[in-house]
Amino acid sequence: MYNEKILQILMEFKQGKISTDEALEALKKLPYEDLGFAKIDYHREIRKGFPEVIFCQGKTPEQVKEIAFNMFKNGSDVLGTRASREHFEAVKEVVEKAVYYEEARIISIRNTPIKKTKGIIGVVAAGTSDLPVAEEAAITAELMGNTVKRFYDVGVAGLHRLLDKLDEIRQCRVLIAVAGMEGALPTVLGGLVSSPIIAVPTSVGYGANFHGLSALLTMLNSCASGVSVVNIDNGFGAAYSASLINRIGEESK
Amino acid sequence: MYNEKILQILMEFKQGKISTDEALEALKKLPYEDLGFAKIDYHREIRKGFPEVIFCQGKTPEQVKEIAFNMFKNGSDVLGTRASREHFEAVKEVVEKAVYYEEARIISIRNTPIKKTKGIIGVVAAGTSDLPVAEEAAITAELMGNTVKRFYDVGVAGLHRLLDKLDEIRQCRVLIAVAGMEGALPTVLGGLVSSPIIAVPTSVGYGANFHGLSALLTMLNSCASGVSVVNIDNGFGAAYSASLINRIGEESK
Amino acid sequence: MYNEKILQILMEFKQGKISTDEALEALKKLPYEDLGFAKIDYHREIRKGFPEVIFCQGKTPEQVKEIAFNMFKNGSDVLGTRASREHFEAVKEVVEKAVYYEEARIISIRNTPIKKTKGIIGVVAAGTSDLPVAEEAAITAELMGNTVKRFYDVGVAGLHRLLDKLDEIRQCRVLIAVAGMEGALPTVLGGLVSSPIIAVPTSVGYGANFHGLSALLTMLNSCASGVSVVNIDNGFGAAYSASLINRIGEESK
Amino acid sequence: MYNEKILQILMEFKQGKISTDEALEALKKLPYEDLGFAKIDYHREIRKGFPEVIFCQGKTPEQVKEIAFNMFKNGSDVLGTRASREHFEAVKEVVEKAVYYEEARIISIRNTPIKKTKGIIGVVAAGTSDLPVAEEAAITAELMGNTVKRFYDVGVAGLHRLLDKLDEIRQCRVLIAVAGMEGALPTVLGGLVSSPIIAVPTSVGYGANFHGLSALLTMLNSCASGVSVVNIDNGFGAAYSASLINRIGEESK
Amino acid sequence: MYNEKILQILMEFKQGKISTDEALEALKKLPYEDLGFAKIDYHREIRKGFPEVIFCQGKTPEQVKEIAFNMFKNGSDVLGTRASREHFEAVKEVVEKAVYYEEARIISIRNTPIKKTKGIIGVVAAGTSDLPVAEEAAITAELMGNTVKRFYDVGVAGLHRLLDKLDEIRQCRVLIAVAGMEGALPTVLGGLVSSPIIAVPTSVGYGANFHGLSALLTMLNSCASGVSVVNIDNGFGAAYSASLINRIGEESK
Amino acid sequence: MYNEKILQILMEFKQGKISTDEALEALKKLPYEDLGFAKIDYHREIRKGFPEVIFCQGKTPEQVKEIAFNMFKNGSDVLGTRASREHFEAVKEVVEKAVYYEEARIISIRNTPIKKTKGIIGVVAAGTSDLPVAEEAAITAELMGNTVKRFYDVGVAGLHRLLDKLDEIRQCRVLIAVAGMEGALPTVLGGLVSSPIIAVPTSVGYGANFHGLSALLTMLNSCASGVSVVNIDNGFGAAYSASLINRIGEESK
Amino acid sequence: MYNEKILQILMEFKQGKISTDEALEALKKLPYEDLGFAKIDYHREIRKGFPEVIFCQGKTPEQVKEIAFNMFKNGSDVLGTRASREHFEAVKEVVEKAVYYEEARIISIRNTPIKKTKGIIGVVAAGTSDLPVAEEAAITAELMGNTVKRFYDVGVAGLHRLLDKLDEIRQCRVLIAVAGMEGALPTVLGGLVSSPIIAVPTSVGYGANFHGLSALLTMLNSCASGVSVVNIDNGFGAAYSASLINRIGEESK
Amino acid sequence: MYNEKILQILMEFKQGKISTDEALEALKKLPYEDLGFAKIDYHREIRKGFPEVIFCQGKTPEQVKEIAFNMFKNGSDVLGTRASREHFEAVKEVVEKAVYYEEARIISIRNTPIKKTKGIIGVVAAGTSDLPVAEEAAITAELMGNTVKRFYDVGVAGLHRLLDKLDEIRQCRVLIAVAGMEGALPTVLGGLVSSPIIAVPTSVGYGANFHGLSALLTMLNSCASGVSVVNIDNGFGAAYSASLINRIGEESK
Repeated sequence: MYNEKILQILMEFKQGKISTDEALEALKKLPYEDLGFAKIDYHREIRKGFPEVIFCQGKTPEQVKEIAFNMFKNGSDVLGTRASREHFEAVKEVVEKAVYYEEARIISIRNTPIKKTKGIIGVVAAGTSDLPVAEEAAITAELMGNTVKRFYDVGVAGLHRLLDKLDEIRQCRVLIAVAGMEGALPTVLGGLVSSPIIAVPTSVGYGANFHGLSALLTMLNSCASGVSVVNIDNGFGAAYSASLINRIGEESK
Repeated sequence: MYNEKILQILMEFKQGKISTDEALEALKKLPYEDLGFAKIDYHREIRKGFPEVIFCQGKTPEQVKEIAFNMFKNGSDVLGTRASREHFEAVKEVVEKAVYYEEARIISIRNTPIKKTKGIIGVVAAGTSDLPVAEEAAITAELMGNTVKRFYDVGVAGLHRLLDKLDEIRQCRVLIAVAGMEGALPTVLGGLVSSPIIAVPTSVGYGANFHGLSALLTMLNSCASGVSVVNIDNGFGAAYSASLINRIGEESK
Repeated sequence: MYNEKILQILMEFKQGKISTDEALEALKKLPYEDLGFAKIDYHREIRKGFPEVIFCQGKTPEQVKEIAFNMFKNGSDVLGTRASREHFEAVKEVVEKAVYYEEARIISIRNTPIKKTKGIIGVVAAGTSDLPVAEEAAITAELMGNTVKRFYDVGVAGLHRLLDKLDEIRQCRVLIAVAGMEGALPTVLGGLVSSPIIAVPTSVGYGANFHGLSALLTMLNSCASGVSVVNIDNGFGAAYSASLINRIGEESK
Repeated sequence: MYNEKILQILMEFKQGKISTDEALEALKKLPYEDLGFAKIDYHREIRKGFPEVIFCQGKTPEQVKEIAFNMFKNGSDVLGTRASREHFEAVKEVVEKAVYYEEARIISIRNTPIKKTKGIIGVVAAGTSDLPVAEEAAITAELMGNTVKRFYDVGVAGLHRLLDKLDEIRQCRVLIAVAGMEGALPTVLGGLVSSPIIAVPTSVGYGANFHGLSALLTMLNSCASGVSVVNIDNGFGAAYSASLINRIGEESK
Repeated sequence: MYNEKILQILMEFKQGKISTDEALEALKKLPYEDLGFAKIDYHREIRKGFPEVIFCQGKTPEQVKEIAFNMFKNGSDVLGTRASREHFEAVKEVVEKAVYYEEARIISIRNTPIKKTKGIIGVVAAGTSDLPVAEEAAITAELMGNTVKRFYDVGVAGLHRLLDKLDEIRQCRVLIAVAGMEGALPTVLGGLVSSPIIAVPTSVGYGANFHGLSALLTMLNSCASGVSVVNIDNGFGAAYSASLINRIGEESK
Repeated sequence: MYNEKILQILMEFKQGKISTDEALEALKKLPYEDLGFAKIDYHREIRKGFPEVIFCQGKTPEQVKEIAFNMFKNGSDVLGTRASREHFEAVKEVVEKAVYYEEARIISIRNTPIKKTKGIIGVVAAGTSDLPVAEEAAITAELMGNTVKRFYDVGVAGLHRLLDKLDEIRQCRVLIAVAGMEGALPTVLGGLVSSPIIAVPTSVGYGANFHGLSALLTMLNSCASGVSVVNIDNGFGAAYSASLINRIGEESK
Repeated sequence: MYNEKILQILMEFKQGKISTDEALEALKKLPYEDLGFAKIDYHREIRKGFPEVIFCQGKTPEQVKEIAFNMFKNGSDVLGTRASREHFEAVKEVVEKAVYYEEARIISIRNTPIKKTKGIIGVVAAGTSDLPVAEEAAITAELMGNTVKRFYDVGVAGLHRLLDKLDEIRQCRVLIAVAGMEGALPTVLGGLVSSPIIAVPTSVGYGANFHGLSALLTMLNSCASGVSVVNIDNGFGAAYSASLINRIGEESK
Repeated sequence: MYNEKILQILMEFKQGKISTDEALEALKKLPYEDLGFAKIDYHREIRKGFPEVIFCQGKTPEQVKEIAFNMFKNGSDVLGTRASREHFEAVKEVVEKAVYYEEARIISIRNTPIKKTKGIIGVVAAGTSDLPVAEEAAITAELMGNTVKRFYDVGVAGLHRLLDKLDEIRQCRVLIAVAGMEGALPTVLGGLVSSPIIAVPTSVGYGANFHGLSALLTMLNSCASGVSVVNIDNGFGAAYSASLINRIGEESK
């Protein structure tokens, strides 16, 4: 398709439809257009179910409002993560249909309907304090068009709760495992399932937890295979990776 | 299927095909067999292309020889990672057809033929010093039945080399991105492709690299989405995760 | 008894049996003798089943030989930890009946017979690479007079192996849980048993393990209760603590 | 006992007392019931003197109120740790007899009377700033049914205060040693007593204390034997471990 | 010129214009004056376009007001960094023409006009959250008399944006590259340009970012040459270094 | 003097002035009194110019008030460090003559006059932001009876200011060197003087300063001899050490 | 010049000198050629005095030999850093005129003569143990065509040595300041000169030096302006940055 | 004396004994000579009992030989620290009377006799593994002319040994406290004595000791006053500081 673009310019030039200068200009832009193309291609894929993303933390409500409004006007779906209620209320002023997921700290505006995948992303969380991160992952995955199942409060210190849900957990195509404190959940899970696991350490804990470092190191050193890790509290990132993986199953059908 | 097993035992018992003791024994094992079942099921999946794995580092050549020999005798494929030449030579004594991948530090013994996937795992490595880890990933992935393409020496400090290979890289279903020093490769890659990326920090570097910590932190903090991370130098773990993901595409067809 | 000592000095002084100077001297020394007493008391307790301990690492074979020989001559039992074969051979030259536990790196010389406790100390270890530390704990505990049961290779990534042994593990009065890499064993164990658990992180692992830091932090942050932790690779310390606890059960009977 | 359960189901099935479906159902549940059993067993033990525990920090007063109320209604004793006054006041609204230990930050609701152990848990604290953590340990231990003695402000920089209390300290079956700053108390104590010591580093200090890291490392590296360590500021965890140990002495009688 | 000062004193002394004591005094001070000379020399250079600098953070508005007022009265240009609006308003009370750059947190008072360099300092910033630091660098550089071009929001996860600006970026004599999170921008930039790059890690990010440590390590380990690094968030320091470098080009002409 | 106490009791006992019981009691207490003696001895020394010390941080104003009042009533001098204005005002309510050193965050109450030493403690501070710590050191040293000279704002980045004061600095018997950020002052000082230097790192700085870690490591690694270091921001500790050293010179005369 | 290339292709196509396919091919390659162009342009600049660079550490002598030989054959100058004598001897076998700088661990092969700059790069080193890193910087800078002056053993603990050389140091256009241990040299230097300083922390030291971390943090926190920092022991990187800066002065003339 | 030098030059100039140029030259050099003077002054002081010091670690035997020989020839006393036997043997070749202290790793050559101080430096060490560092301190202090008393193996886990020596320890003017592992010795000592204490953490230990970090942090956070700290294993530095302090007592007499 890139070849065709060059060919078309050459032909239009040969046929005198465009001047030398116009051909030069058109061709000169191509390299960047090509890289821009990558971007457009990328965008198109994203549009196939993935909303645009605004990382709200560190931005003023006013800034978020402006970005969200522009995206919305251009027909984009909007996903705002790490959004406070203040962020949401500013957005709400200009986009009536904006929705706020309080626990997940997510703002969503939809211009397009969400089609759900057949494959399931399972979000498994160790403790109730891990829920904000788990919900950030779950809501993000849902807004990206995935069917999501939640398995909450199944930490490894009460193993029976996890084993109880094992059959359902095994039916998921991808798993997101969210845990703070000592972060052992993904390891135990990794020994029991055969789906890829995206592990999310949370900053839940105190003392020698060092704001999530403990859970992070645990997950990176997991002696179970099939576990890969994202940044502390990065529920969004885990959902994004899980979405890319889940889509592989969808597209292959 | 688990139900069927219990049902079958019950019926055989009722029909007198097995004695009370035999039924008791069979049933008593079930809970464990069930969990073992998970294991067996897991094993079976693994056997669909995934060899058994021995982490050789820290084991004596004698120990590795013994484990490998037993596995081999039982018809298993054998995959030994972090294997020194001494490990290999010990294994070679008892299993003639053992193969050693020197750079990847992998011992392989095959009882079953390897069937290659249609989907491709791309192994992208930043520098020549990262090759041992990249090869551990690539050979592991191949021995697990994946079609693998290698893209080596495409570090981000010489961007054109990476861009030059971009079309081919985009055709991969999953990517393993291996980089040491500042570890920026997965971030740049993540902005250019739409496949899930498993990032492997390597311990290549010196000084403020702190044995791979620098690359690890870079990858965890990547501002590109779709990147998840394994432990420093863990080429095997990246390949294992990538295999699970690649299989999703194969099985869905 | 202390009162009596003072009384006796006072009386001898009043009765003129000792001079003012002698009374002064005798009384002045008392505080230190009292504290020295503490020591003797402490030693006596130790002799009730606990051998003397030499930390051999960092000492020359010659030094260890000398210390061990003197202890032995004085009728003490001798326990040398972190002992290399060189240390042992030096000791063997002068004390024929010295015994070396190679994997545990322990030298033992007994002047007194070992009486075993009724209560059991269970030593639970995650992987085969953790065995040197687990054996240091197990042999130390045995030499301190405890009945010890070993549960090895029951890491949480293969949960069924651990569950399989659970009944036996639950019969132990105290547990020592030894694990490297991500160190999740004590947490899972803590949710399944009601005995106190002494957790020993090992330096087994690589990369973001940081020489045992990962397992140490995991154990300190364990979300299971009843878990306390000793230094990385400190099998001896865990056994010592477990012995003190086990003795509580013995003595109470 | 597990065998008997299976046998019983088999027999009832053979004798037609239960249908195939009922036998199937009963047997299928067994593995989970067994693990659930663990839970029940565990619960029963806990009920033998140990209240249920809510970690309040990070939960809203509303959430704590709801959990506490449900526990209380079910006849459970309730122990809420890291509870603020706000948490307490919310609970107080629905459970009149809730009690708040301000310094220990503990909420307690009792449905059952507390029976005290004969064995004593000694809580030894270095400085006045360590008292909140020491009190968390002491109150927790008391609510778990232990007889507790407090030895406060006996830091090692004023050794005579510690030595003054030594006789009483030696009469304790288990010791909890709480210290911040340089955290030397457990080491000095470990050289003077023969009870097991659970050491609790506190985050008291500044500068190179690094929020308790200094005291934590000191305690892990203690050259005195018989010392094991819990997380920074984890008074509850120390009390829980000490309770398990103390109970060994009670039960053996 | 230093020689001349000594010469002058000697001559005045010989000619009786100054007494022995006065000569002694004058000469005794010289060594210090010489080092003071360095200072004066340094100041003079600074006055050639570089304002005086007050690091406002940690100073009270009152303190900053006083320092700024005295400098201003003495004819100095004043540059206050890390200044809050409160700092500015205090200064504004006494120096009407003080200017505040809100995003850059800089107060400027000019007694002398700013002459712009021919050579350009390019300030390249990865994300919108990095702008306060980028602006601190840009405004500082401008107030030091440099011509500055801003290239913002050109992070490496969207490579085309950076490549799009490459021609303009290449025309800069020195580059300041500002990035938080994974901090890969200077490395990618370093492979594409031939100007020296001053890299500024920012504290933008969360979790394993550890307040900028991640970006700092990335930049120090950059596999691209020509990159040197300043402290986290130190936009001022980068601008100062860049100014010294840019001046080399100006002065050589 | 200790001997005399015992002697006195013995004599009073022999002379029938005290009964056997009374002698016993008096003597029994002696061991503790002996250790208390150490304390008393220590106190006496302290009273020779050193006030009692309350570390106020982390104590409530009410607690500080109570401690200070009791000390004051007993004739002690009182020194409260890390005291907020709230602390002071609470103390002021009950002890009219309490004095507050705002910048040093010190409360002082004197029952005894301060006699100044001949030897001088020099407090050398690098920057204006280091003054609170420097003043804590200076005021503490003065209240402990030392003659103190302050050399402030003589950081090594403007060397002439330091050299200018060198003669005066060299006349000090002991030096306290206070510096934050890169903490180079003690090293440079150590190469220029022959007095012992107590170095105090401060938490002044940002980014890779890591709350004073940078300055702390610099000082510990100083290539100049004669430098020893106290905790970050520990002006009091430096003054205490310097006082002990200064007293050596006083007492020897 | 890029425009001209496109123009030329267009014209040759219009004039029928090249076929449609040839034009297509030529144009299609342009984007990459353009980025390649960047590379070529970059190379050309490098050839203006900068040799190609091989980072030898972690490569086998055989690998280095091969790379060096190919570079040499293609007319490139070759610079091998972190080269052991073994590396050199392997290279020497195939390129007779290879030169080895032992202390700097550098291999150099020249196809082109070196032209020296007018501007001077000063390499200032604190201690004799820092010399390998200082020499790596100095030799690299010389091989890149810079005039280099060495100022060694001028650490700040003996300030007079540094001040003694100050006049000469001030005549340098750029400074490279190399220091280990506490790393204070660049700060002191930064207060005395007005050239840009590239600071190189070395791993010289022990204990709390943590392999150069101490010096690295010191330099990043320098309170003197105009200092930027490279990785620990990275003499090459400092020289490269200094060369880019020095070239600015040369080219501007 | 500095004044006199200037005066002399002025007078010689006025009297025509030296020309204008000569006066100029003489005066111009003065500032540096003055600082050089500082050095000479410093040297002279050192010669009053303090030998010159060579830090041998990281230097070749050949280098140490050369430096030592030159010093020796110039009449200096020579002190070589961190010297291996190889270093010593090289020195021995050229200076017959060189002496080697094996455990302390010190080479000493004396041109001048050592005069001992009246005041005593006490070197107190916790464990036998700390002896190399303790001996480095003790031998250094002795070679610097101090009377030294050693108190070894008095770690705080066996308190009575320390208390037993307390009287003698209290007679020392300065104390050096050497301890590894948890490093509690200086804190306990600080509560019992009134001399200044220089604390030396050693790298003795394993696991969470982190090469001495544990002991270092303990000592910096000591809750006992009068303790200052030097780098890990820096016995020499402690002795140097202690010597400066001890000399204060000597000189004051």
